[in-house]
Amino acid sequence: MSDQRDLLCELLRRFYDTGWISGTGGGICSLESTGRLLLAPTGVHKELVRPEDFFVVDVGTGDVLEAPADTTLRPSECGAIFRAIVKRRGAGAVVHSHALSAVLACDLAPADELAIEHLEMLKGIPGVTNADRHLIPVVANTAREPELVGAVESVLDDGRFSAAHAIGVRDHGAYIWGADAWDAKKHAEVYHFLFEAMRARGGHT
Amino acid sequence: MSDQRDLLCELLRRFYDTGWISGTGGGICSLESTGRLLLAPTGVHKELVRPEDFFVVDVGTGDVLEAPADTTLRPSECGAIFRAIVKRRGAGAVVHSHALSAVLACDLAPADELAIEHLEMLKGIPGVTNADRHLIPVVANTAREPELVGAVESVLDDGRFSAAHAIGVRDHGAYIWGADAWDAKKHAEVYHFLFEAMRARGGHT
Amino acid sequence: MSDQRDLLCELLRRFYDTGWISGTGGGICSLESTGRLLLAPTGVHKELVRPEDFFVVDVGTGDVLEAPADTTLRPSECGAIFRAIVKRRGAGAVVHSHALSAVLACDLAPADELAIEHLEMLKGIPGVTNADRHLIPVVANTAREPELVGAVESVLDDGRFSAAHAIGVRDHGAYIWGADAWDAKKHAEVYHFLFEAMRARGGHT
Amino acid sequence: MSDQRDLLCELLRRFYDTGWISGTGGGICSLESTGRLLLAPTGVHKELVRPEDFFVVDVGTGDVLEAPADTTLRPSECGAIFRAIVKRRGAGAVVHSHALSAVLACDLAPADELAIEHLEMLKGIPGVTNADRHLIPVVANTAREPELVGAVESVLDDGRFSAAHAIGVRDHGAYIWGADAWDAKKHAEVYHFLFEAMRARGGHT
Repeated sequence: MSDQRDLLCELLRRFYDTGWISGTGGGICSLESTGRLLLAPTGVHKELVRPEDFFVVDVGTGDVLEAPADTTLRPSECGAIFRAIVKRRGAGAVVHSHALSAVLACDLAPADELAIEHLEMLKGIPGVTNADRHLIPVVANTAREPELVGAVESVLDDGRFSAAHAIGVRDHGAYIWGADAWDAKKHAEVYHFLFEAMRARGGHT
Repeated sequence: MSDQRDLLCELLRRFYDTGWISGTGGGICSLESTGRLLLAPTGVHKELVRPEDFFVVDVGTGDVLEAPADTTLRPSECGAIFRAIVKRRGAGAVVHSHALSAVLACDLAPADELAIEHLEMLKGIPGVTNADRHLIPVVANTAREPELVGAVESVLDDGRFSAAHAIGVRDHGAYIWGADAWDAKKHAEVYHFLFEAMRARGGHT
Repeated sequence: MSDQRDLLCELLRRFYDTGWISGTGGGICSLESTGRLLLAPTGVHKELVRPEDFFVVDVGTGDVLEAPADTTLRPSECGAIFRAIVKRRGAGAVVHSHALSAVLACDLAPADELAIEHLEMLKGIPGVTNADRHLIPVVANTAREPELVGAVESVLDDGRFSAAHAIGVRDHGAYIWGADAWDAKKHAEVYHFLFEAMRARGGHT
Repeated sequence: MSDQRDLLCELLRRFYDTGWISGTGGGICSLESTGRLLLAPTGVHKELVRPEDFFVVDVGTGDVLEAPADTTLRPSECGAIFRAIVKRRGAGAVVHSHALSAVLACDLAPADELAIEHLEMLKGIPGVTNADRHLIPVVANTAREPELVGAVESVLDDGRFSAAHAIGVRDHGAYIWGADAWDAKKHAEVYHFLFEAMRARGGHT
């Protein structure tokens, strides 16, 4: 088993403890090597995922390259969204948060974008300063996660959001990415802080 | 001692850490085998319960089939409610939450039902989609827990609540169930998230 | 070293983790044997207190019967208050909470009493039912803790508060007691839940 | 490696768990010996910092006296601010908090000072009583942390703030200091409690 799988398991336990993932929802994926995406199974208690439980998926095609020995497991429904973010943003890892703070931050967005400003923590996002008005996209939720792919691809291509390392999904949570798993964890900490700050400030900044 | 008892002890510690059970209140029961319900003792620090402390109760009759060696222990008062849920819903495990979020969610219910909608997390409940308006029953509190049995049986039979895997008890908490202990833990995570989201949204969805 | 000292150290760590004690403030005392009260030192990080750090104080006179080997330590200023509660209520242990929820609950009391009702958790206090309007005294804060003794003795003798196992101190926190350390821990969990519930309900019950 | 480095690593993990530092932001420095300041690297996950990762900086000049073997590491940008506080206040350790409660407390300050009163916890700050109106300075945030030094030095010299052991930085967090690392940790607990209390009270005391 690769160290990368151990790391994902550790981060899943950590995210569970923070409340970003719960009720078997949410997760994290990362590249094991170029083109090979480690994907957790769907519908399982994420804090209990073991290194041998991951699927390896082809980033380009979505084909399952390796499956866990436990044949009852199916790959996470987030796969297509994770792959879109990896391909269009060069991300090496993507966190899928089910945090309440992410849901409530999206509630503050009147339309398809959330503007965050006046917070030092913005500097935790590459290329963003604490003087910026940082925009992240907010997309509508869909019945199934694969149906989100079109909207996700569209906002990833939208020039307004070139600095964003997160996409909010209304009533649902957020996708947050980075160059690798540690970087995605850093950005997840930053964005959840920003979400909580916006909520505490009542949407006024 | 069965693995099931170890699991219940682990979940009791976990629920204590999350604040769902405290002050010796709240708990979890589960079937050890068909018809045999594992029940924690009443009035003890639930995070300290050991595998040998459980009672085994007949699901049909409520009779104590096995008692712990410690004769000072008495079975949890929730027994009759747990048995009603096991019998009428085919549940294998029931969580009794004393979480503040459960109490506050019940405060939001004007009458005998709580309507939850516009949240992805609803998909964590079997048969429920994120487009549904999910109804759970809210019953009035009583002086003693066994007196709740009639109201609990009544709402379990109420067609409005056929998808519900939880019953709110006003000023008190909630009963949340699943096919087994892990499934009940999953549903407990889902419903507590929903309770907190409703509270944060001020009851508006 | 007695098991009782180990238990107090464990509870101090637990209370620190919950935020009931912090910044070296707050604590717990308990009887080691009849008339001999174990008292932590003042001004130390309570989560780091070791079994050999406790003072033993005479409940009747307040005299130090045993002092720790570390001569830089001085006994907690709460000693006189703890002794008053032990003597007048027959308590075996007293928690001194510096929790924010205790401070905010006192803010809800217009005069010298806090009325708590409509909460199942009230049943965690001996002799109290969930139909009761449970009164706990709220005293004004003073410059030094020993100056609180008079007010504490007065409310302990006040018939309105015969069922109370807690005294709120405005802007400061609360004293919460029980028959022994485990019982005091249980009551501390119950009262902090009640404080948080009252706050969340905006003082309306 | 000195015990002091071990202690800083332990405190970094603790502060991370409390949410005072996250997203690689925030931290703590302390004197290893007179004139030699231990400084964590910048841009790293602070909860993972190891004893061998620290820089040793000359308090007087800011020169790096010792650098970690890992040549990819650069010293924290807080160095100049930490040194100003150590020199002007005789501090032995400084916590740099990125806690949301610190940001929100600064929001409550209409101008350049935050007044805290009516809280027992004030006694945790040397020379402050619970009857005092305790003033801490609040400075405007800047693009880079070294640009804060002028404002920090100015408020450290301001007679209004002679009792303050903390400086709030708007939209950013706070610097909190003490005689040594344990003392700074104590004051950090005290001030974060005060920040949370002010927020909960809506800025009214």
